[in-house]
Amino acid sequence: MIELVKRHRQFGGSVEYYRHHSVVNHSNMSFAIFLPPQAKTQKVPVLYWLSGLTCTEDNFMTKAGAQQVAAQLGIALVAMDTSSRDNGIAGEDESYDFGSGASFYLNATTEAWSKNYNMYDYVLSELPTIIEANFSVNALKSISGHSMGGHGALMMALGNPGVYQSVSAFSPIVAPTSNSWVRQAFAGYLGEDSAAWLQYDSCELIKTATERLPLLVDQGTSDEYLKEYLQVEKLAAVCKTHNHPLTLRMQEGYDHSYFFISTFIADHLRHHARYLSA
Amino acid sequence: MIELVKRHRQFGGSVEYYRHHSVVNHSNMSFAIFLPPQAKTQKVPVLYWLSGLTCTEDNFMTKAGAQQVAAQLGIALVAMDTSSRDNGIAGEDESYDFGSGASFYLNATTEAWSKNYNMYDYVLSELPTIIEANFSVNALKSISGHSMGGHGALMMALGNPGVYQSVSAFSPIVAPTSNSWVRQAFAGYLGEDSAAWLQYDSCELIKTATERLPLLVDQGTSDEYLKEYLQVEKLAAVCKTHNHPLTLRMQEGYDHSYFFISTFIADHLRHHARYLSA
Repeated sequence: MIELVKRHRQFGGSVEYYRHHSVVNHSNMSFAIFLPPQAKTQKVPVLYWLSGLTCTEDNFMTKAGAQQVAAQLGIALVAMDTSSRDNGIAGEDESYDFGSGASFYLNATTEAWSKNYNMYDYVLSELPTIIEANFSVNALKSISGHSMGGHGALMMALGNPGVYQSVSAFSPIVAPTSNSWVRQAFAGYLGEDSAAWLQYDSCELIKTATERLPLLVDQGTSDEYLKEYLQVEKLAAVCKTHNHPLTLRMQEGYDHSYFFISTFIADHLRHHARYLSA
Repeated sequence: MIELVKRHRQFGGSVEYYRHHSVVNHSNMSFAIFLPPQAKTQKVPVLYWLSGLTCTEDNFMTKAGAQQVAAQLGIALVAMDTSSRDNGIAGEDESYDFGSGASFYLNATTEAWSKNYNMYDYVLSELPTIIEANFSVNALKSISGHSMGGHGALMMALGNPGVYQSVSAFSPIVAPTSNSWVRQAFAGYLGEDSAAWLQYDSCELIKTATERLPLLVDQGTSDEYLKEYLQVEKLAAVCKTHNHPLTLRMQEGYDHSYFFISTFIADHLRHHARYLSA
């Protein structure tokens, strides 16, 4: 059962916000969906969007400006909250980069987090099942995201061959397990044994990828997090070594904001549309 | 002197946020400007955007999705805060529809508000002077806005023939002086003598307009404020009586939100572009 929170007409379709009980997260979750006008008469494919730290399902729908092109292309857009919330876990709301709004899209295994932080399963399975059961969509899906969500999109697609028709990312964290900042969050969710972390690291997954799913990545050169946290050059290097198709576009002067995303989101949607035609 | 708060590259141009001391408001003011790529090599015309209750200069820039088309058309966009703030006026932050964020774009005359609430002069004169002195823009300008800002745009254009090349509005308050809700705010800013209010009432201004500036108005039929507060039928009636050109588009199923604005903002920009060509 999903509960409609609000619905707004937009570009001949509608943006709709829902809450529901998530089985894998043992908690309530929120998501938003944009249904293009084509969904009134046929089942449309879906692009899943994973947002960055501190975001909810609302940021992408209000700031990215994706709906106009999605309406033209006949693609539904689904954005979910970046974690479950209000779980009563000690310290869950204390950091912007750990706990609420900072799931990193993992399945947590440590005692404090394993019950309510299973966003990997939520994004991969539970949410698509709900979307396909409740809306006029078909089973074709692609995935994209920003920053922590760019990490999520890449590792989700790379780790699950055949599930996504295509993948793209904006300013993704590409090598979380070799980044001292993200390692803290991974340790908190997954424990100290870093061997268990590698399944969530895009650069590691490239090394063993059996599917050559092309990656489209946009990265602003003036992104304040590029050097220390995002390190997209690591993705470029591992893709080169392992002959994995990567279109990396370094966008001169662009930063980490939704102003950057809005500028190039139409390119990403058109990229996905080529793979999402039934 | 204006102080840059932040700058983001977007659609080959940039969104820039500024603060400055306003002479007419005896207070600090904030505004945002989108400079299209054309502004790097030539002076471009400007569309001024007036937002609705509770908004700041940020809402339009982050939610309306106007920059893509503005970049194509070579139009700068300027959005200002909806009032001065932090003036130490008793009760200034207590209501969403009076005081901070709710200037109604008037020149206040009552004792409490007359010093810091002169948004009419700010929008009409002070801000354009600042914009023209500091950015690569020419003197051609148009005006648009939403709700309280739709009221502002219409009455500013109707009351100042020759100043604006064109005007449009989304979900405007068209007849504030005959609306019991808005009358409270007008009385607070202007005193009880309602004769002084009429210069700020679009429907009244239509009756004496010497210039037949065409009005473009979009109004959602599912707008929760339409019946009681916006009452666009009053504008349609007075325009008909006085033979004033009005294109009123009732948009089926759309509400009062930025999802509505984003759907039709491109139409408005193209409308203004036709009048803003030098």
